[in-house]
Amino acid sequence: MSSVRTVRVTVENGYDVRIGAGVLREAPAHLPGRKIAVISDHAVATLHAGPVVDAFEADGRDVYLFPVPVGERSKDLATFGDLARRLARAGFGRDDGVMALGGGVVGDLAGFVAASYLRGVGLLQAPTSLLAMADAAIGGKTGLNLPEGKNLLGAFWRPRAVLMDVRTLATLPPAQVTEGLAEVLKHGLLNDPELTTAVTEGQLAADADPDQLIRWVAASAAVKADVVARDEHEGGVRAHLNLGHTVAHALEAASAHRLSHGSAVAWGLAYAAILSRRHARNEGRDPVDWSEPVWALLRSRRVPRPDRWAWSELLPFLERDKKVRAGRRRWVLMDAPGRPRVVDDVPPDMERAAWDELRDRMERATDREGATA
Amino acid sequence: MSSVRTVRVTVENGYDVRIGAGVLREAPAHLPGRKIAVISDHAVATLHAGPVVDAFEADGRDVYLFPVPVGERSKDLATFGDLARRLARAGFGRDDGVMALGGGVVGDLAGFVAASYLRGVGLLQAPTSLLAMADAAIGGKTGLNLPEGKNLLGAFWRPRAVLMDVRTLATLPPAQVTEGLAEVLKHGLLNDPELTTAVTEGQLAADADPDQLIRWVAASAAVKADVVARDEHEGGVRAHLNLGHTVAHALEAASAHRLSHGSAVAWGLAYAAILSRRHARNEGRDPVDWSEPVWALLRSRRVPRPDRWAWSELLPFLERDKKVRAGRRRWVLMDAPGRPRVVDDVPPDMERAAWDELRDRMERATDREGATA
Repeated sequence: MSSVRTVRVTVENGYDVRIGAGVLREAPAHLPGRKIAVISDHAVATLHAGPVVDAFEADGRDVYLFPVPVGERSKDLATFGDLARRLARAGFGRDDGVMALGGGVVGDLAGFVAASYLRGVGLLQAPTSLLAMADAAIGGKTGLNLPEGKNLLGAFWRPRAVLMDVRTLATLPPAQVTEGLAEVLKHGLLNDPELTTAVTEGQLAADADPDQLIRWVAASAAVKADVVARDEHEGGVRAHLNLGHTVAHALEAASAHRLSHGSAVAWGLAYAAILSRRHARNEGRDPVDWSEPVWALLRSRRVPRPDRWAWSELLPFLERDKKVRAGRRRWVLMDAPGRPRVVDDVPPDMERAAWDELRDRMERATDREGATA
Repeated sequence: MSSVRTVRVTVENGYDVRIGAGVLREAPAHLPGRKIAVISDHAVATLHAGPVVDAFEADGRDVYLFPVPVGERSKDLATFGDLARRLARAGFGRDDGVMALGGGVVGDLAGFVAASYLRGVGLLQAPTSLLAMADAAIGGKTGLNLPEGKNLLGAFWRPRAVLMDVRTLATLPPAQVTEGLAEVLKHGLLNDPELTTAVTEGQLAADADPDQLIRWVAASAAVKADVVARDEHEGGVRAHLNLGHTVAHALEAASAHRLSHGSAVAWGLAYAAILSRRHARNEGRDPVDWSEPVWALLRSRRVPRPDRWAWSELLPFLERDKKVRAGRRRWVLMDAPGRPRVVDDVPPDMERAAWDELRDRMERATDREGATA
């Protein structure tokens, strides 16, 4: 039996992240309520809902399993309204609970249902993808998409707990694992050199030893939990988690989401590394190049490449980013791993030059090694 | 020039309630943002939006006026989604703001838009009906209806400020004033004997002297602000504000909302007075009868009467109430004015007997004075 690790998110009414093999069975201990809604998607529900439903029923609860269609399109207002109406028809009260069992889409959707139904009911987050474990499940962000853009609606809503059952990772296709690795690498670059090494050396794989998976998933969770504890509502340091994401969001949008989030984040990190180096040198500082672990991930996981956009083609998508404040673009840059800061004085020419450098290097990487698609 | 009164809501990040004649013109001082969405309904917008839009424009803001159809039906998910999409298309960012200009429907709807758009933007509440001033505009509750019931979705979202411009009351039809008086009387009964007298003596009328209106609207706001400050998220004493509301919600629902909220609350207060007396006597205490001010309001304002439901016909609507916890019905009762408490040991027979007494008295009041419709 492998161990279970606990990472505490020390906000007001803080909560535990439990990482282990089989921790989904703990669900009833973390979510009160006579009635429990398990919101999942059809694929995850088929694989993982059974033991969860059994555990709640063994604990004497009335369990309702509400699966939604797989994919980002379920994160919309119609599905949200449908779920809320199901809770109402089942007579859910303020003391009943919602469990999110699935990837980021399910976590965001079920989280916003829990945040909004009767102005808020108890929520248990159980991310089943590496991406959701690394990113969305900790920190209380919930959200829906509108036709005008992603995550335009939502709320901050703290879960009672977060259960990361590494057994669910064994059922992920390799490409889905890659999705999460970019976020895990980001956490390593932000605050954990050993985690960076673990990613580049391939220690986080779906078929890895459970204790290894638990160790590194917990390490990633610890970086995120630390940032969230210092700035739950994103007024300050939580912005550091956007490392690589400004360009990533633009790449996703420009590709009409054919480029996945994880792939876009990996390329976004490469861009941020280049822009960080140029920005630091321009100001006469001597930066540490942190691009190598990013290229190692891009190559080893054969991360799909974005189209060869000109910077001017990406600009319209960058300017829609909701992190734009008072018209100035804000970048998260690092002079060295572990030293993120928010910068809003990057000249437009430097932004473009960094992109051109990345595009050029992308090309050469492909030519030389055929590693990217 | 009449005076402006300020009532402070002393929660974390507390806010001011400003009550005066013409205070709508203060709006820009209380709501930051380069872009401002004024959400209103068509009737209120026609009467009151002009000066508000002018004030924001004079302050250099981009103002968008989004009027919705008059009435409760606008408090739905479709209108909510439509408003959020309008904000997105107009490029609203996190630092922009939403102003709710209207009655309770507009306040709840616009409040939930502000709570949810980009996970929350600044909100200014400007209630234009006596009911919204007395009730919904203070305390941060926002909400939407579902086909399954009222206010089933929502959030707690603090406004930056609340502006109560008593000039808007002069444009209300008398029946709309009555709507608000029941809530004001409730506040008097809970914590302000002078306010109770002001209501029963007719000092809160649409054509009253502005200084009188300001005084009593502020007194009502002070009672609500005090309760909210002690229990913002309704874990404890905020439940006292439900005095009269358990039966009121059942009467509204049983009548398919032909009986208005204000009328239902007035009758609900009469019921709570009777149940309070019976419950206290049954436990050997010597209660103070506080029903007279309620009957004075019912008679003087000719409050429409509910149908002669049998208690058994109301029960299904009572049991849907979201204040039911663990299957026990909770009542707010008072042994005397100013002494509310939550009680969950009322025998079903006593509930029914209190209703029969109210129905009987309703009948006699009508026979004797022809005062109710």
